[in-house]
Amino acid sequence: MLFAITPPRRSTPAERLPEIAQATIDRLSGLDLDGLVLYDIDDESSRNPVERPFPFSPTVDPSDYRTEHLGSWQTPVIVYRAVGKYPRDGLETWLSGQNAASTLTVLVGAASSGTTAPVSLADAQAMSSDLNPDLLVGGVAIPERHSRRENEHLRLIAKQEAGCRFFVTQVVYDLNAAKNLVSDYRYECESRGLTPVPIVFTFSVCGSMKTLEFLRWLGVDVPRWIENDLRHATNPLEASLEQAAATAVELIDYCRRLGVPFGLNVESVSIRREEIEASVELAAQLLAHLKT
Amino acid sequence: MLFAITPPRRSTPAERLPEIAQATIDRLSGLDLDGLVLYDIDDESSRNPVERPFPFSPTVDPSDYRTEHLGSWQTPVIVYRAVGKYPRDGLETWLSGQNAASTLTVLVGAASSGTTAPVSLADAQAMSSDLNPDLLVGGVAIPERHSRRENEHLRLIAKQEAGCRFFVTQVVYDLNAAKNLVSDYRYECESRGLTPVPIVFTFSVCGSMKTLEFLRWLGVDVPRWIENDLRHATNPLEASLEQAAATAVELIDYCRRLGVPFGLNVESVSIRREEIEASVELAAQLLAHLKT
Repeated sequence: MLFAITPPRRSTPAERLPEIAQATIDRLSGLDLDGLVLYDIDDESSRNPVERPFPFSPTVDPSDYRTEHLGSWQTPVIVYRAVGKYPRDGLETWLSGQNAASTLTVLVGAASSGTTAPVSLADAQAMSSDLNPDLLVGGVAIPERHSRRENEHLRLIAKQEAGCRFFVTQVVYDLNAAKNLVSDYRYECESRGLTPVPIVFTFSVCGSMKTLEFLRWLGVDVPRWIENDLRHATNPLEASLEQAAATAVELIDYCRRLGVPFGLNVESVSIRREEIEASVELAAQLLAHLKT
Repeated sequence: MLFAITPPRRSTPAERLPEIAQATIDRLSGLDLDGLVLYDIDDESSRNPVERPFPFSPTVDPSDYRTEHLGSWQTPVIVYRAVGKYPRDGLETWLSGQNAASTLTVLVGAASSGTTAPVSLADAQAMSSDLNPDLLVGGVAIPERHSRRENEHLRLIAKQEAGCRFFVTQVVYDLNAAKNLVSDYRYECESRGLTPVPIVFTFSVCGSMKTLEFLRWLGVDVPRWIENDLRHATNPLEASLEQAAATAVELIDYCRRLGVPFGLNVESVSIRREEIEASVELAAQLLAHLKT
């Protein structure tokens, strides 16, 4: 069970960073989390010609933020690396320097295949295996891509063969898409004699039309009924929380039945306080469910 | 809570019909059903150029079957009428002759708009209002059509304005499609000042690839993971039963939250004994859930 945060914007006054980090630790300390996820935000406007609903704002480097402000965090941290952002030597230094006992990483490819990055995802994976073979490297899984191309399970297996030891999905709102991916992945592993690696499913709450618009911009399939609920519900955030919890519970049951190792990750897509608090509540509910 | 059956084939020896009907009554008598649904099977090959997985075989007229063999059934019966099959005077006689206290009907339009039927669906609805205004007339709701055209909720409202007092869906495997339809229907009713009428959701189990193929032929979106389960599960029927129950429970919760009146209907798509028994088990589980 993980919780994901995005580091503060780079424009945040440096003296405020410690208190922001401490607020996060305080908010999450009541949860029995197995780890913290730190996203590495890239300007993804290259992959979507539509205007970004929230303007892109560069964020503090997740690894620096962790080192400088999250030292008191007790469980491992999964630091994302958007590999397209870094020069080769920068990535090499970073990968070599990580302590595999307390750090994991998720390597993310460039947002659009039209961009040319100094280091490709495959290069970065190979680099990690060479320089720090104990470091647990994960990859990104996108159920929506599976809905459109029906080959995401093969992409996962290719990443796995290149060294990926786990996957983290983007936010799941379309339960069927997630189940289809897990199912195809599991049976493809079986037919190749591979052991499935854990898939960590990400959930979030969505309390406003703006957040919904942003989710869609990011490529998340948000069903129409959720949009309607948001437009009309007296308490859309509560409705969204219930819906996310129900989706997660159904995926948990499904993975257990299928024998696919899984994890859960909760993120707050929005920076509104009430949406963050609802995300923490969602994580608490899912932790309670996992223990049943 | 309804249970739907298809009358026996016309090729069944007449002397076997009483025992078949009695077996159905015995099988269902343990369930506290609000009614029995009798389908009226039309040769739907006109709507699908792909070969029918099970060859079409005409069935005994549902109304005759009910009158002649299901007289001991205690609760109301919902008799389907595929309006395209009947001449005008035949439909008129039938609609006039029904006792509205014990019979409801669902009028179904011709399977393909390319065929010309003696009586259109709209005609049949008008006829029913004129000849037997107390008769409760329902219509068919197809969530899959909503996924493709996004206007099924408007079709429902048009049918409702023509006299439909309830809807019955085709078999639901795609939960999102069903929720999207209910949601759009509910909010469209609200904006027009209409009271939503009950939507009866139909569920079934699917225990074999042949049944799955048939469901798809009928236009049901069966998710890939269900197909995979069927191919690989030790007990696909049990898996399907669990999945159908989970889908139904989620729709029940959703409709309650939304304030849309609903009903449930369980049918056995297949005529295999174990699939029929699993359908009865599904109905029993859903009845138990409705009472919680």
